[in-house]
Amino acid sequence: MKLHGYFRSSAAYRVRIALNLKGLSADHLPHHLRKGEQRDPAYLAINPQGLVPTLQDDRGAILTQSLAIIEWLDETHPEPPLLPTDPLRRAKIRAFAMVVACDTHPVQNLKVLARLRELGLADEQVTGWAAWVNREGLTACETLIANEPGPFCFGSAPTLADLCLVPQLANARRFGVDLAAFPRLLKAEMAAKNLKAFADAAPDRQPDAE
Amino acid sequence: MKLHGYFRSSAAYRVRIALNLKGLSADHLPHHLRKGEQRDPAYLAINPQGLVPTLQDDRGAILTQSLAIIEWLDETHPEPPLLPTDPLRRAKIRAFAMVVACDTHPVQNLKVLARLRELGLADEQVTGWAAWVNREGLTACETLIANEPGPFCFGSAPTLADLCLVPQLANARRFGVDLAAFPRLLKAEMAAKNLKAFADAAPDRQPDAE
Repeated sequence: MKLHGYFRSSAAYRVRIALNLKGLSADHLPHHLRKGEQRDPAYLAINPQGLVPTLQDDRGAILTQSLAIIEWLDETHPEPPLLPTDPLRRAKIRAFAMVVACDTHPVQNLKVLARLRELGLADEQVTGWAAWVNREGLTACETLIANEPGPFCFGSAPTLADLCLVPQLANARRFGVDLAAFPRLLKAEMAAKNLKAFADAAPDRQPDAE
Repeated sequence: MKLHGYFRSSAAYRVRIALNLKGLSADHLPHHLRKGEQRDPAYLAINPQGLVPTLQDDRGAILTQSLAIIEWLDETHPEPPLLPTDPLRRAKIRAFAMVVACDTHPVQNLKVLARLRELGLADEQVTGWAAWVNREGLTACETLIANEPGPFCFGSAPTLADLCLVPQLANARRFGVDLAAFPRLLKAEMAAKNLKAFADAAPDRQPDAE
């Protein structure tokens, strides 16, 4: 398999964790988002959004959107599962993941922040925007798992929720968010970071890291 | 079941279509987003994001995030299916849905647009932002199904993709986006709108419509 990514993309980071947890290897093809390499016509032909990640399987099938890729990995390589079998529990975990992947990350990604600058916002306002978005999302996440014993977001093993949380916390730190208000999220992060699958997927461990 | 929604919320609209396709009824509990009713403490207790929709099932279980709700409905009420059985096909349909539900709708929702106004953007710039976000998302969607014969997004019956597309096209029109560039999406919309499940879910057919 081939994974088109970028060391700092939190969406690509989610997929890197999933591949590691499943024990799958992939060739990593970096696209430098700050240099605009994701808008190269050859890349747009496989991912018309010009976003990372994109996964190409061994037969050449093209998969986009990190959560769709992870659900596919979970369906085609079921062990270890990233979602439980109980439908209500699956819904709770997916909802947590989507607070991050729908309502948080896309509202603070590179493209949106660049657009804010084009509209005349100062750097400080743009960073403030990204911090606000992260705080809103993480506040909801903290509440969603407040009564979950853990140590992971939902139970004693990582799920789709942890795959979304850990990269988002990295973003939040980059934008200067004070994480002291999120003890339950930090507990889950600590459990995750003790696993090699998460540690090896970290941005600073990628070949294109700067 | 009870569905907390708002006639104009495109995320609630997706779930209304899903319930109708499955032949399920729910009590509709409107929360007037423009009046801030979603920030009522009683509502925040069940949905800490203060967003709609929220679905409460007959046992009182609380489900949030429209795509997580729809996957749950599909898992607990399999007929008619909103996703096929083939994993790669499921991934393609989920990816299309997530272009809308992750990268488009949350970047132009009421909360984000209100924040842009607070930062000093003029009404015209805010509407321009929303139109830009919709054009970007719909352009990707058009490409993703360019080679799908249809008439629906993916085949001869509606899927999760159509549930996301139809409400997003309503948003795009509201923000003045010229849809002539998206013939394949309009073909899918026409097929969907001929179905009673979609027609009955339309914003102007809801009891709280203004």
